[in-house]
Amino acid sequence: MTKFARYEAHGEIAYGVVEGDVVKQLTASPLEDYEVTDHTHTLSEVRLLAPVVPGKIVAIGLNYKSHLGDRTPPAVPEPFLKTTSSLADPGQDIVIPREALEENITIQEEGELSLVIAKRCKRVSRDDAMNVILGLTCGNDVSARQWQRGDLQWWRAKSSDTFSPIGPFIVTDLDPGNLDLVARVNGKVEQESNTSDLLYDVPTIIEFVTKMMTLEAGDVIMTGTPGEPGNLHPGDTVEIEIEGIGVLSNPVVAEA
Amino acid sequence: MTKFARYEAHGEIAYGVVEGDVVKQLTASPLEDYEVTDHTHTLSEVRLLAPVVPGKIVAIGLNYKSHLGDRTPPAVPEPFLKTTSSLADPGQDIVIPREALEENITIQEEGELSLVIAKRCKRVSRDDAMNVILGLTCGNDVSARQWQRGDLQWWRAKSSDTFSPIGPFIVTDLDPGNLDLVARVNGKVEQESNTSDLLYDVPTIIEFVTKMMTLEAGDVIMTGTPGEPGNLHPGDTVEIEIEGIGVLSNPVVAEA
Repeated sequence: MTKFARYEAHGEIAYGVVEGDVVKQLTASPLEDYEVTDHTHTLSEVRLLAPVVPGKIVAIGLNYKSHLGDRTPPAVPEPFLKTTSSLADPGQDIVIPREALEENITIQEEGELSLVIAKRCKRVSRDDAMNVILGLTCGNDVSARQWQRGDLQWWRAKSSDTFSPIGPFIVTDLDPGNLDLVARVNGKVEQESNTSDLLYDVPTIIEFVTKMMTLEAGDVIMTGTPGEPGNLHPGDTVEIEIEGIGVLSNPVVAEA
Repeated sequence: MTKFARYEAHGEIAYGVVEGDVVKQLTASPLEDYEVTDHTHTLSEVRLLAPVVPGKIVAIGLNYKSHLGDRTPPAVPEPFLKTTSSLADPGQDIVIPREALEENITIQEEGELSLVIAKRCKRVSRDDAMNVILGLTCGNDVSARQWQRGDLQWWRAKSSDTFSPIGPFIVTDLDPGNLDLVARVNGKVEQESNTSDLLYDVPTIIEFVTKMMTLEAGDVIMTGTPGEPGNLHPGDTVEIEIEGIGVLSNPVVAEA
């Protein structure tokens, strides 16, 4: 089990492996050939960043029975797209757009197990799926509900700037099919589930998406959210915690 | 007026400016500080590539009255997202996925005036919009209709691999509000319009999208398609021609 971080220290951005509260700098990103150096920091000395810079983010809709409400379970996985410009670091403000505040839009967190793709791949079988995944991280698919329902497609509803926090680490060799997932707003549990409740499991998602779409090294797949998310308001703090990965925590602010 | 190309010559990828049938190599991409060198090729000696490698592609739905049919014109621009992994070069095969052929899915071209963003920007006013655009190119928003109607969101319908050809050139200093646009399949005209018929013009699109979403240098915005597109089948050739830019031509094949 390896825990990768991306971080800023002394104004420079680096990748590292985390052991306890120490991060050891790598010579390259975990997507490349890297070596572990003896240049270390304590975690408290660095600013953690989104642990990968994806070329695209694919998310899966309606993928927990507990999130469906009255809706029929989908007959196939239901991917949608999020922009990389919506990415946010651990600890970075989730900024509610001015228009969302003016229109009184409901903003919610969606805690999601997120996959980081290890290498370019197409038409990956279920049996090979785990071989194209570098590791797992926490994702928050921040959602603007009235925009999600009213717009032709989900763009600002899911990809307004800062609506895609990921992190804090990428962890290898976890079983994506059996991890506890919790989302909290100001410490109150809003979503609580286990990834064993996914309607379409990780190998099925990888197989289905890669039939039509090439995945590239660093791409992120958010696997769906359970239950009923809570509401986010300026001043709140939202945390997504997944067993074995850690806690992705973000303050929520109003756009200035 | 400058015409930029991206191309492969002797196995190397370069950027250039096109003058007549000669391309002069640049020291860097047109998004960076570049100089024009005296290293030249004729266009017939090079393989043209998508003229930019975007970080994201935003497209606008329902943006010509002639394309709406019975539908009400949208109250605001209706963006949606396309992946960069769906990009295709001029001349590259548009590959109809095996599943689309098996499910007898209708595949159509959508000829679209496409904008290439010059620099990172957010909350750009209509008046400033032209200042964040490097230039214009032709785009083909290839669409799989039953997937577009049946899926929760447009992912494989619009972003299957090769479903986003762009090119052949990026041309500066054109008026995006008055350009003839034609789409042909096997030489037969299927779509014919002028960008003066856009429901939401280019400055309005830029202003609206950048309220919620940062645009980055190299991002592409496809501005919508007019009329009723034609059907694409393996063996066809589809051309998108826009006044002052050129012809984006792609063969259509079945996935092997």
